[in-house]
Amino acid sequence: MKELEEKTLSTKLVYQGKILNLRVDQITLPNGKEGAREVVEFSQAVAVVALKDNKDVLFVSQYRYPVGEVLIEIPAGKLDREESPEQCARRELQEETGYTAKHMEKICEFYTTPGFSNELMHIFFATGLTEGEQNPDEDEFVKVSEVPYAEAVKMIGDGKLRDGKTIAGLLAVNGKV
Amino acid sequence: MKELEEKTLSTKLVYQGKILNLRVDQITLPNGKEGAREVVEFSQAVAVVALKDNKDVLFVSQYRYPVGEVLIEIPAGKLDREESPEQCARRELQEETGYTAKHMEKICEFYTTPGFSNELMHIFFATGLTEGEQNPDEDEFVKVSEVPYAEAVKMIGDGKLRDGKTIAGLLAVNGKV
Repeated sequence: MKELEEKTLSTKLVYQGKILNLRVDQITLPNGKEGAREVVEFSQAVAVVALKDNKDVLFVSQYRYPVGEVLIEIPAGKLDREESPEQCARRELQEETGYTAKHMEKICEFYTTPGFSNELMHIFFATGLTEGEQNPDEDEFVKVSEVPYAEAVKMIGDGKLRDGKTIAGLLAVNGKV
Repeated sequence: MKELEEKTLSTKLVYQGKILNLRVDQITLPNGKEGAREVVEFSQAVAVVALKDNKDVLFVSQYRYPVGEVLIEIPAGKLDREESPEQCARRELQEETGYTAKHMEKICEFYTTPGFSNELMHIFFATGLTEGEQNPDEDEFVKVSEVPYAEAVKMIGDGKLRDGKTIAGLLAVNGKV
């Protein structure tokens, strides 16, 4: 669908930060007119639906400053340099919950907000879990909990799960639970 | 879970733009240390799973400049000032696809990227559809298509649907199709 493409005329880095950069590009629209696009550059990320043998899902609750709420989420994090999505999924699961997984299966991937950022999210399904020691980042404060899968799905409709990757991930593994 | 909260010390507006603002706040972490948080301010948004009587779902394909790809998505858009999420859902569905809906049901809501933005996405399920004229925004170029619901769900695992709200929305209405 080449006829929908927008072409870059110029690009300007507005902000270079710790977890994100902001760029404003001048572009040509499909109809030949010019416009601007604001782009938040963000690294790729992973999120892990980790299912125990008893069908409990592992969650981490953490304060999300941008939204001013403690959210219940599946373990997740940004890819380190030269790390594969699966390596990242295994690392984040271990750091945030202490658990390691025998099986780590990629389920799907998606852009979280393709209208304004390039963040690509890889969803994994972890099974064959073994408990271990939590090891969060220095500035990361998380509480681990376990919820039966069926109850977790109900929490979506009840408004108790309010994180996009958590909802997409939980529902995407439905046929495998 | 008050003990997970981060408190704002100061806030600095780094960029004020057309669709987003960027703020960098100095904060106090739960352990008393100081840190910084980069926050993309974005309006609330809606996305609509629109199901025809024949169980086809309406999709719009559009070029997403931040990711450099044409994505197949459910109709969606940002809330206008003083517009309710349901009003926005009805407006975006009509503008992007031409269809109007007899029934518009809120399914769930979620933050798309709570680690770096405050965008809140409301998912609606539209049924009782009537065809009409498309009416997209001036700088919006979209192609409408229709896909049977069961096939659309397969497209998630096949990697043909790569948009987060589309995946979450499609799967969230599964029990109602």
